[in-house]
Amino acid sequence: MLVLCLGVGGVAVAQEPVDLDMVSRIRQEAFHRSQVMATLSHLTESIGPRLANSPQMAEANAWTRGKFNEWGLANVHDDAFDDFGRGWEFSTASVEMLGDRAQQLHALPKAWTPGTNGPVEGELVQVEIKKLADLEKYRGKLGGKVLLVGEARDYKRGTEPDSHRHDATSLEGLQQFTVPKTAAADRAERIKKYSERQELAKAVNSFFVEEGALAAISISGWDNGIIRVAGGGSRKAGEPVGIPELAMIAEHFNPLVRALKAEQTVRLRVNVDARFTDETNQPGYNTIAEIPGRGRKAGEIVMLGAHMDSWHTGTGAADNAAGVAVMMEAMRILKAVGARPERTIRVALWSGEEQGLIGSQDYVARNFAAYPEPTDPAQKALPASLREPTGALQKKRDYDRFSAYFNMDNGSGRFRGIYAQENLAAVPIFEAWLKPFHDVGATNVATRNTGSTDHIAFDAVGLPGFQFIQDRLDYFSNVHHSHLDTWDHIQPEDLKQAAAIVASFAWHAATRDEPLPRKPLLEND
Amino acid sequence: MLVLCLGVGGVAVAQEPVDLDMVSRIRQEAFHRSQVMATLSHLTESIGPRLANSPQMAEANAWTRGKFNEWGLANVHDDAFDDFGRGWEFSTASVEMLGDRAQQLHALPKAWTPGTNGPVEGELVQVEIKKLADLEKYRGKLGGKVLLVGEARDYKRGTEPDSHRHDATSLEGLQQFTVPKTAAADRAERIKKYSERQELAKAVNSFFVEEGALAAISISGWDNGIIRVAGGGSRKAGEPVGIPELAMIAEHFNPLVRALKAEQTVRLRVNVDARFTDETNQPGYNTIAEIPGRGRKAGEIVMLGAHMDSWHTGTGAADNAAGVAVMMEAMRILKAVGARPERTIRVALWSGEEQGLIGSQDYVARNFAAYPEPTDPAQKALPASLREPTGALQKKRDYDRFSAYFNMDNGSGRFRGIYAQENLAAVPIFEAWLKPFHDVGATNVATRNTGSTDHIAFDAVGLPGFQFIQDRLDYFSNVHHSHLDTWDHIQPEDLKQAAAIVASFAWHAATRDEPLPRKPLLEND
Repeated sequence: MLVLCLGVGGVAVAQEPVDLDMVSRIRQEAFHRSQVMATLSHLTESIGPRLANSPQMAEANAWTRGKFNEWGLANVHDDAFDDFGRGWEFSTASVEMLGDRAQQLHALPKAWTPGTNGPVEGELVQVEIKKLADLEKYRGKLGGKVLLVGEARDYKRGTEPDSHRHDATSLEGLQQFTVPKTAAADRAERIKKYSERQELAKAVNSFFVEEGALAAISISGWDNGIIRVAGGGSRKAGEPVGIPELAMIAEHFNPLVRALKAEQTVRLRVNVDARFTDETNQPGYNTIAEIPGRGRKAGEIVMLGAHMDSWHTGTGAADNAAGVAVMMEAMRILKAVGARPERTIRVALWSGEEQGLIGSQDYVARNFAAYPEPTDPAQKALPASLREPTGALQKKRDYDRFSAYFNMDNGSGRFRGIYAQENLAAVPIFEAWLKPFHDVGATNVATRNTGSTDHIAFDAVGLPGFQFIQDRLDYFSNVHHSHLDTWDHIQPEDLKQAAAIVASFAWHAATRDEPLPRKPLLEND
Repeated sequence: MLVLCLGVGGVAVAQEPVDLDMVSRIRQEAFHRSQVMATLSHLTESIGPRLANSPQMAEANAWTRGKFNEWGLANVHDDAFDDFGRGWEFSTASVEMLGDRAQQLHALPKAWTPGTNGPVEGELVQVEIKKLADLEKYRGKLGGKVLLVGEARDYKRGTEPDSHRHDATSLEGLQQFTVPKTAAADRAERIKKYSERQELAKAVNSFFVEEGALAAISISGWDNGIIRVAGGGSRKAGEPVGIPELAMIAEHFNPLVRALKAEQTVRLRVNVDARFTDETNQPGYNTIAEIPGRGRKAGEIVMLGAHMDSWHTGTGAADNAAGVAVMMEAMRILKAVGARPERTIRVALWSGEEQGLIGSQDYVARNFAAYPEPTDPAQKALPASLREPTGALQKKRDYDRFSAYFNMDNGSGRFRGIYAQENLAAVPIFEAWLKPFHDVGATNVATRNTGSTDHIAFDAVGLPGFQFIQDRLDYFSNVHHSHLDTWDHIQPEDLKQAAAIVASFAWHAATRDEPLPRKPLLEND
């Protein structure tokens, strides 16, 4: 009986070749001579959090360039993207309840809000502002006050484990593709809501300053003493930055709401040591390095990447020193095993991801492709995802030389496979590449999309950009954008596994005969 | 066909009578006119934490006496027990890393350790002291230093839900009784270890003071940013209290250990505003109140109780304002429904529970029974559970008038039944009393023992003392002895359910023909 090897659609295809000798060498280097935790440790515990454009982010750019040079990579440089905004940093923040029930309250500042210039003390008042008209209720009443912004939130019992690894059932679930609902013409509504939110935020920032309020405190996004907080104010020079703003743990915020509702007088002392580190908007910086290809495909490009910027209250360990350490380690491994790829393998450590994939989008626009910039100022003010179509994609020289981009940004959990991002032709290729990693748990190629990080910058212009399926661990229960995003929540063995897989994927993408197949571009969806 | 109602052993017994009219009235008052959360709110958010002998504990004694008087209870008074120790209180505590990586570190003081008298700054050094001889390694080296005590601890992933309610399987599991291992003659070994620990703690406290170290920081008992901390120093006047001691969240402690191991210099500023509120040892105070019985059984006693003292970093909400609020509410309900019991129903809000059931043990010794006090000073210095037998139980007048004691101290979770504490004759009685509460989840009478709280003071002298089976919620994951033991982690509906059951149990214990049966006393086990 003749057995044909049939691919999707019944077309006979050659089995995707896998360089098992190289995979063995990569695994040995990754598993037995790993430096991934040394890299992660330096990023998190020597440098610390790396808010985009902060002095610590600059330190991380410099240190990673140094490592890339030490490892013998080529074209090591920082890649500037225009006009990101001002740098900001904070050291300490304290909030104390004064009076008979003196107590330290746990709160940390929102990024890009001002410090208090020493301790300030004031009576606490609750404010709830959902629309511009709500400001009038408070006009003339907030001078010298500390503001408690918003309502108490009911405690949500934790009925699922904090930390989660995939099992056969959850992996099988990833094999299901959800056919998208018709993309309704709701862009107008989304733009309206976005613009209203932006307008309200600016008005509130200005109003609090005009009123002379001392500081504003809102509730942390999560319970259980976790401070989950991102940005406030504005990173853009010239925009209103408002007053010092902090997020407080729910267990300390809610009692303050109840005390005010019971008409008790509460006085707080707030001391936030925070500052903008620039007067004017500055460019942001991605760090780039390469292993140059050789021969006729040397101009073709395979990219690896992860964002190096983080939020400011933890040390950005899972989000995303983990991704950075893995991508750096993959490059180190490839050099250590003497890999001489045909295509150029380039690594990018992005900045500005947390503010909307800014570093990667700008890099893709400058190097590969972009839609025309809108001319209407109202359109320009919108994030890319909300803008009206502006015309056909404008491709740069390297657009056709680009093969694939691989990203990591879902915490430190072990790779369990890869999202094929609806690129069905990539599925059998990834299945072949994953096979030597089945024994370390990476088995699954899912056709579905995943989003919210830098591979979308590539995907959006029709370039193959992918991210791996990871065990979630406590990414969305403890650490994501929280003060607990620290070294101790990292799983070292998982990072070693991930680095081996990334190195192997990079190698195979850089040496296979053809560039990775592309899916059709959904223009201006 | 004749059907006999047969009890254990085939003896025909009368069905335990249940006063369903009274149960209806109790449920209505408990479920529809509850004041249990008002009580809990005052205890936790107006008074706050209630460390034994602190000013806040005294405030709680006074406030609860006021409530009992307001509700028309009799014999409302504070019951003093001798020589508990000194009071202590703290308001705020801060630890800051100084230098380039200035950061606020989350730490809170151990109770009964001194404050810093304003901010102190010093270099951090790690110390590990497991035995007396270890002190010599550090002699002459700790002056002006901040001490990091102990080792880093690996992060433990949370693979079980934080919050847990019983299901059919876990309730069925409670029906199994584990036959105890032979009580080995290991008392000598336990005494030796206890005495060594005590001796080491005192020596270390004195040594750190002699050295002139500024403060000592150890790791919190739990991960995930939770500060779990009890006492240090000593509450006893004349004993060495050592230097200011704090527990720090694991996510901030572990990086300090790693920094020191990497031979980095770390300087900390520590500021603990804490103080002893007495010069000399003071008595502790339980708060007592009664609904007097009537008729010939008025001299017999049914007791309810819960400890009112707490640790100091949260507000003692689940441990144990929950129990106090439920026991108070049960008394209020009984008054509100016009209950006129035959036996006297007495409630006790204990102090000194967290230091070893001291308030309840002393109360039981003075009012019901005790073993003779040892005369050997070495024996006197030991906790009751470690002492050699001293002779036969000495019973007081009310020993034979005592019927039963019901306690609550396992957080705010719903009652799912009761532990019969090996008192098999109580099982069918409790089964009958629970039946009208099956519809609110309380179904289970377990023969097994439960310990670690005040009903043991009764059980230890052969008096029927019980505690209820409760849903655990997040008692042992988030709140027990932690800074998260606050109002928001309480389940109000569960407290209403518990109060109804306690009121009903108290009513039935106080009106049934006979006192509750007793199990044989295991003398001096």
